[in-house]
Amino acid sequence: MTGENTDDDHGHRPTSDVGTVSLVGSGPGDPDLLTVKARELLETADVVLHDKLPGPDILAEIPEDRREDVGKRAHGEGTSQAYINDRLVELAHEGKSVVRLKGGDPTVFGRGGEEMRHLAEHGVPFEVVPGITSAIGGPGVAGIPVTHRDHASSVTVVTGHEDPTKAESSVDWTALAEAGGTIVVLMGVTRLPEYTTALIEGGMDPETPVAMVERATWPAQQVATGTLSTIVDARDEVGIDPPAITVIGEVAGIRTEVLGAMLPDSASTEVDDA
Amino acid sequence: MTGENTDDDHGHRPTSDVGTVSLVGSGPGDPDLLTVKARELLETADVVLHDKLPGPDILAEIPEDRREDVGKRAHGEGTSQAYINDRLVELAHEGKSVVRLKGGDPTVFGRGGEEMRHLAEHGVPFEVVPGITSAIGGPGVAGIPVTHRDHASSVTVVTGHEDPTKAESSVDWTALAEAGGTIVVLMGVTRLPEYTTALIEGGMDPETPVAMVERATWPAQQVATGTLSTIVDARDEVGIDPPAITVIGEVAGIRTEVLGAMLPDSASTEVDDA
Repeated sequence: MTGENTDDDHGHRPTSDVGTVSLVGSGPGDPDLLTVKARELLETADVVLHDKLPGPDILAEIPEDRREDVGKRAHGEGTSQAYINDRLVELAHEGKSVVRLKGGDPTVFGRGGEEMRHLAEHGVPFEVVPGITSAIGGPGVAGIPVTHRDHASSVTVVTGHEDPTKAESSVDWTALAEAGGTIVVLMGVTRLPEYTTALIEGGMDPETPVAMVERATWPAQQVATGTLSTIVDARDEVGIDPPAITVIGEVAGIRTEVLGAMLPDSASTEVDDA
Repeated sequence: MTGENTDDDHGHRPTSDVGTVSLVGSGPGDPDLLTVKARELLETADVVLHDKLPGPDILAEIPEDRREDVGKRAHGEGTSQAYINDRLVELAHEGKSVVRLKGGDPTVFGRGGEEMRHLAEHGVPFEVVPGITSAIGGPGVAGIPVTHRDHASSVTVVTGHEDPTKAESSVDWTALAEAGGTIVVLMGVTRLPEYTTALIEGGMDPETPVAMVERATWPAQQVATGTLSTIVDARDEVGIDPPAITVIGEVAGIRTEVLGAMLPDSASTEVDDA
């Protein structure tokens, strides 16, 4: 197939009494980094399904009677993805306009793809409303451009959730080390020692700059900087906790060059551990 | 260094009569995908320096007397980056609040890093305002999640501007082929034959799904789909022109599964070449 056919050729065009689902990215946490469209949808949706990732400032803008927290159930265990999928379909079949709000961008490690498929299988009309991914916007706000003509002609965003020492790990850290671009690890606080070691063993220079940004763009943002060989100690010294992103590559060193000129909104979120 | 010092330790804290520069991402082109902060800055800035990449719908929202097009000079040649760097400093020294508006995100192949450094070297206070990168938001709006638990645990964004057959190419396509995640190529319309060949020679399955999205989120959006071995023909058949993104990986195949359920705003932008 090359081009694509018009809607008539596809089976699931919804009837008018079915609601809609918008898979919406919240961005990294600063409400001003919501898109115009996301903000409008949050104001007009019948119900917003969310977890904790969009952060307190954004969640506080949504009236409680239109919010449904699917991040945790009563006994503290995570709501299953199957429940969320079914709930989205159920609400749409009640004719509701539903926002499924996700931290960052809905398609970057957000199960957005699974929800898209489930909605399509059940004939629920949906749209994807992109958000600023913290993988790119987080470093940017902190003074780190993820690409730079002199330093990095690619950026790879990867999850640090998996154990890189396991044989079945689907992330090939050696190949990433060889690719030579910037690497941004999401959800990579706990396994930092494993994947920094894997990258060094994969041939990456141990002196490669690394920065960790905790709660990027939130008022409580914290940053730790170091190198592939020192960042674990820096993480512990600063006390970086999840959620945080790890930026690996020469570009991570630019922050220290430019920090002095950054406007207070960006720069004042620094933690001084001197 | 681990944590970081307070502003007092940095040299370039600006004096009060210097203006500010905001490096702002416009997102992929749909004005509703501007961030709230970007829209506010476009309304309040003294002057907006831009090129053509933000697209006509967004540029039309900025009054002409506050716009300065640095994309082309009088005789049609591109304005040099050196000129733009100097112009930003000059305007800031006049006390202006300046927006440097860039397509997508300012740190993704947008020379944002170079401008950050130049501003810092000249003591001009600045901030980075992230935008939705078309590399992630473009596929998302078109029904392609760049990551998916079952298909891709990483996504690499790379420029297709360089010739992959040149020895000095800084993109290692073989390593990218081995890394196994989704690859998104920006500015990769012309060199599509070279890098798809490089990926196949690097070991990637020729049947790997590929989608090209031209002018993602614009009213004139067009999509071509195929595989690593067929996408060049599909590009030509549909008539994909720059600017376009190329998505390579299993996730590119999800679009055809979900397209029938996508809301008209997303789905009606299809071109039917049947």
